[in-house]
Amino acid sequence: MEPSSGGGGTTFQPLVVLELASTTPEEAVGWLLSRIRERQQNGGAELLVEQLSLGAAEGGEKNNQNLFVVGASWQRLLHGAEESGLFKEYSDGSMRGFTCANKHKFKGFTGSGDGFLSMAECQYIIKHQLEALRAKEETHVPGFSQAKLYPGKSIIRRLQSKGILVQMFPLHDKEELKRLSFSWYQRVRLSLQPLDAIRDYFGEGQALYFGFLEYFTIALLPMAVLGVPYYLFDWEDYDKYVLLAVFNLVWCTVLLEVWKRYSAALAYHWGTLSRKKAFEEPRPGFHGVLGLNPVTGREEPVFPSVSRQLRIYLVSLPFVLLCLYLSLYVMMIYFQLEGWVLSVHDEGPTLWTEVLTYIPSVVYAVVIEAMNLAYRYAAEFLTEWENHRRESSYQNHLVLKVLVFNFFNCFASLFYIAFVMQDMLLLRQSLATLLITSQILNQLMEAFLPYWLQRRRNKKMIRKVLKRRAIEEKELPLAEQVRLEADMSTYLGTFDDYLELFLLFGYVSLFSCIFPLAAVLVVLNNITEVYSDAFKMCKLFKRPFADPAGNIGVWQLAFETISVIAVVTNCALIGMSPQVKVYFPESATQLILWTVTAEHLLLGFKFILAFLIPDVPKHIRVKLARIEFESLEALKKKVKHLLMHFKLNRKASEA
Amino acid sequence: MEPSSGGGGTTFQPLVVLELASTTPEEAVGWLLSRIRERQQNGGAELLVEQLSLGAAEGGEKNNQNLFVVGASWQRLLHGAEESGLFKEYSDGSMRGFTCANKHKFKGFTGSGDGFLSMAECQYIIKHQLEALRAKEETHVPGFSQAKLYPGKSIIRRLQSKGILVQMFPLHDKEELKRLSFSWYQRVRLSLQPLDAIRDYFGEGQALYFGFLEYFTIALLPMAVLGVPYYLFDWEDYDKYVLLAVFNLVWCTVLLEVWKRYSAALAYHWGTLSRKKAFEEPRPGFHGVLGLNPVTGREEPVFPSVSRQLRIYLVSLPFVLLCLYLSLYVMMIYFQLEGWVLSVHDEGPTLWTEVLTYIPSVVYAVVIEAMNLAYRYAAEFLTEWENHRRESSYQNHLVLKVLVFNFFNCFASLFYIAFVMQDMLLLRQSLATLLITSQILNQLMEAFLPYWLQRRRNKKMIRKVLKRRAIEEKELPLAEQVRLEADMSTYLGTFDDYLELFLLFGYVSLFSCIFPLAAVLVVLNNITEVYSDAFKMCKLFKRPFADPAGNIGVWQLAFETISVIAVVTNCALIGMSPQVKVYFPESATQLILWTVTAEHLLLGFKFILAFLIPDVPKHIRVKLARIEFESLEALKKKVKHLLMHFKLNRKASEA
Repeated sequence: MEPSSGGGGTTFQPLVVLELASTTPEEAVGWLLSRIRERQQNGGAELLVEQLSLGAAEGGEKNNQNLFVVGASWQRLLHGAEESGLFKEYSDGSMRGFTCANKHKFKGFTGSGDGFLSMAECQYIIKHQLEALRAKEETHVPGFSQAKLYPGKSIIRRLQSKGILVQMFPLHDKEELKRLSFSWYQRVRLSLQPLDAIRDYFGEGQALYFGFLEYFTIALLPMAVLGVPYYLFDWEDYDKYVLLAVFNLVWCTVLLEVWKRYSAALAYHWGTLSRKKAFEEPRPGFHGVLGLNPVTGREEPVFPSVSRQLRIYLVSLPFVLLCLYLSLYVMMIYFQLEGWVLSVHDEGPTLWTEVLTYIPSVVYAVVIEAMNLAYRYAAEFLTEWENHRRESSYQNHLVLKVLVFNFFNCFASLFYIAFVMQDMLLLRQSLATLLITSQILNQLMEAFLPYWLQRRRNKKMIRKVLKRRAIEEKELPLAEQVRLEADMSTYLGTFDDYLELFLLFGYVSLFSCIFPLAAVLVVLNNITEVYSDAFKMCKLFKRPFADPAGNIGVWQLAFETISVIAVVTNCALIGMSPQVKVYFPESATQLILWTVTAEHLLLGFKFILAFLIPDVPKHIRVKLARIEFESLEALKKKVKHLLMHFKLNRKASEA
Repeated sequence: MEPSSGGGGTTFQPLVVLELASTTPEEAVGWLLSRIRERQQNGGAELLVEQLSLGAAEGGEKNNQNLFVVGASWQRLLHGAEESGLFKEYSDGSMRGFTCANKHKFKGFTGSGDGFLSMAECQYIIKHQLEALRAKEETHVPGFSQAKLYPGKSIIRRLQSKGILVQMFPLHDKEELKRLSFSWYQRVRLSLQPLDAIRDYFGEGQALYFGFLEYFTIALLPMAVLGVPYYLFDWEDYDKYVLLAVFNLVWCTVLLEVWKRYSAALAYHWGTLSRKKAFEEPRPGFHGVLGLNPVTGREEPVFPSVSRQLRIYLVSLPFVLLCLYLSLYVMMIYFQLEGWVLSVHDEGPTLWTEVLTYIPSVVYAVVIEAMNLAYRYAAEFLTEWENHRRESSYQNHLVLKVLVFNFFNCFASLFYIAFVMQDMLLLRQSLATLLITSQILNQLMEAFLPYWLQRRRNKKMIRKVLKRRAIEEKELPLAEQVRLEADMSTYLGTFDDYLELFLLFGYVSLFSCIFPLAAVLVVLNNITEVYSDAFKMCKLFKRPFADPAGNIGVWQLAFETISVIAVVTNCALIGMSPQVKVYFPESATQLILWTVTAEHLLLGFKFILAFLIPDVPKHIRVKLARIEFESLEALKKKVKHLLMHFKLNRKASEA
């Protein structure tokens, strides 16, 4: 990162863009800018900020003039790094919280500021500092009497929730992005993703997602290799799946345990493993009546937790149950359709009726996807309405709602076919149709739809992009770059990406013994997913702020829940297989009892295993313990020092 | 607590007694005393210590002259309180880590030292300070060339492991003890135990045990009340237990969740909930060859973790399995005996053969207890030999070994009778015999055996005690008190007490629907347990050091495991009951499938419940968050202050 006096007329390196509503009065703009520029001891953010001179709008369109770029001095960024608790590599190779006092002991610190903090880190610092900008005596935003402010509360959050601050996003780094996209997806190769480079550009949260995607794909390879011959040579002999089911059982347990350790190693390497969570601000959408915050003792909007509980249990829960019932109803319609089609085919089988038999499955798969999508919006609306105070609580409730419904919606029919109808041929066909249809739809929705929408929305912009591509060497003026990026879609986080992986993991771990090609399909899907995700991250979306995540969060729990269900399902499938049934020719009861006993033992074993395997590899635990020990020693030395002073002083005063 | 110049010739309040081996050379004694007395800045403990003048031994016996009493100045105790991270009540009613800088802001601090720190706290501080006494340049204990010392390692631990320090224990406070024992067990009453007084005298670990015992007993009352009419009116109608089984199911899940919250409230109230764990020293028994500690980078004895793993998996694990096999073997012998006795009774039933039918169960119960005891010692030996570095790791491995065997040994026969033989009458009889016999044996072993041993061992001492009782008013000289207490048995911690509760919890939650009187028996046992435990803590044992525990540790997990097994067992018992069987007159398979499904749903529900119910009550979470917030604010203020200074300095230097 080099400080440059770019094309748009700024004298500092622009890092973050703020877009205010075009109707914002001068008064509010002036106030905000002065608060951002003010010194820290006066309660400001002490950052550099300038309005973008956009020039005349082309083609007579009226562009929003309220675009601002934010930057900071090198000293300010270092202080910000300390305040936001950034971890950097120390001279001894360990990762430690950066402090200005020890700055020369960190690897790569040269004093001139060149390259020590990556651009993503600088942008994260700026965001952190902007969000930490707090109201003082102001009771409302100047010029907006309804936008109330409370002492000590974040100004930026308030402006966001009131729609005055339209968006805040970090700028892309064209050079860096070109290098990253070249090594990531622009050449076809048999190598791993450049996770460190992804982390440097997009932050740890993104890098962990791509790391998990890659890990999951590689972990699927043995199953895919095992699956192909099964599929090729035993097509009709669908009941020889005991071996695959046992393999599944072990695989999905080991997979997640190893991932936990691998992810801890990655997070340690990136300095986010032992990083402490900051005190969480209320999320922008939170609202309430004025009351006393029991923690800070200050006056601010509060929302009684009883009301929230009531909303959750009296509205959200019944709504979720209703949706589940609806999903069940649709499933029953599908089975009726399926039965009707089969009867038509049986009456007079022609090529057309043969094709017809596949129609209900495909339609059902499309309906499932549509229901998932619709439910997704409903869940977001409901969770928003539940009015959670903290982002983490909002996320947990949203994830829980979405996961339960998606799981039920996608897998209910498969469970019904497997355990109620016990029709393994239909199960195989259903699974194949569901998997293939959902993959095709997902790829369409994820990569091509945003691309197409973007094209339609700003054809003019695309023309500019093309122009830029044509004159690749020539620098684009800052103002145009900002305008271009401001109109790009916003990347909404890894939620949908993880959700898709979650369902794929479900298909593979629950039923792939019935349809061994599933693993192959998922591997193929994941490989294209890497490319399409990388493409959309680099080309289609605004750059997201780095998210210093130490693990994949609630998704670890979600995947582990699936793996527990997978044990039960695979045991049941084994118990139902003709291969096992021959050992109990007389008594079905005996067979069931043995199956249940085995399943309980396996579940117990799984929990013991999860308990025994440490979540963090030993060499990292030793490193963390060493850092803790050293800080303890330093503290002891300090105490000893103080004690000596204290005693000397006492002696002196006594003498 | 009043500083007193007691009877034994000390000029300070004696708090802790050190007993060195009688053969310790003068040189070593002198060195240790000087290290204890030395100032802190020179690496000493800065405590007061004096040898006890014991006078002529009575009856010509040779008493150990190497008894020392340790105390400290008031200032030293306050510093020690800060160093050991003691939590005290702050002026605003919250619990905070004590610091000398803020001492006047803590409730009850008067400056004179009277009553602010309880005697148990002072003793804990002294212990902490003694254990933090570290070797400097010494390579071995003077006079003991084989007792090697390593810089920075605890001297006291080394002396303990080499047998030079025979024991270290805190002194009883006779006045306090009299008050405590009066309010605790010396009057029969219908009130709760004085948990706060127990905590003040014995520490948080003890108080939590007694709190759990009381909680468990009260929680059993509804079951006991429900059980009596069941037992009285339906004696032979043993299959009407579905209601009880369902009650059991709910009860054992709710019980532990509520306890977790109650225990958190207690621990918060006592200031141990958010207290951080200190850096753990190697346990006294740990040994190894000289190597580099990867954490501290210092030279000290290390033991490769591979060797430990080998010992665990190649020796301990096979040994445990062998013991389990042995237990199974004994069980089979019991069943043969049982069968033989029944056949004798059936051939010619007389009163004698009637009595004879109870003999095998009683004998088996006694054998189980004996095997548990023998195994307990073996497990301790093995775990010691595994050479764990840290006390917590040693404890976990010991608890795991003992729990698995005891659970198997006690419950294997019951599971066999219930699910293989399916003989509910025999199950009821077996359960009753096991429970009653083990309770009688336990009470004997726990209270009367130590009492009787103590009597035998020091009849002379008992005579003194009697003399003391006769002249209750007159103060016993310190030297005699110390000698008396040094000869008392050492209290070995709450391990055996929790183990007993664990087994009782198992009997009740697993099978009490078959034998509803079990809850009544356990309640009666627990009530006598409170009295006998209180009696032995106060009268029979040396005072233990306070253990600042924040929860019941690994036992919470152990009880939760039982409650999971209880869900499975109760579901199976319900499925086997004739009441349920009538609903599935045709198909046993249907019945089993329904039972299994219900069981899985219940298990899932249980996990969701455990996940949803917060472990710490909300009002305590708010208080903790407030303290965290305030310390964060204080830090911010400090940083702001520093920043201002820094800028002023820069300005000054620039000007």
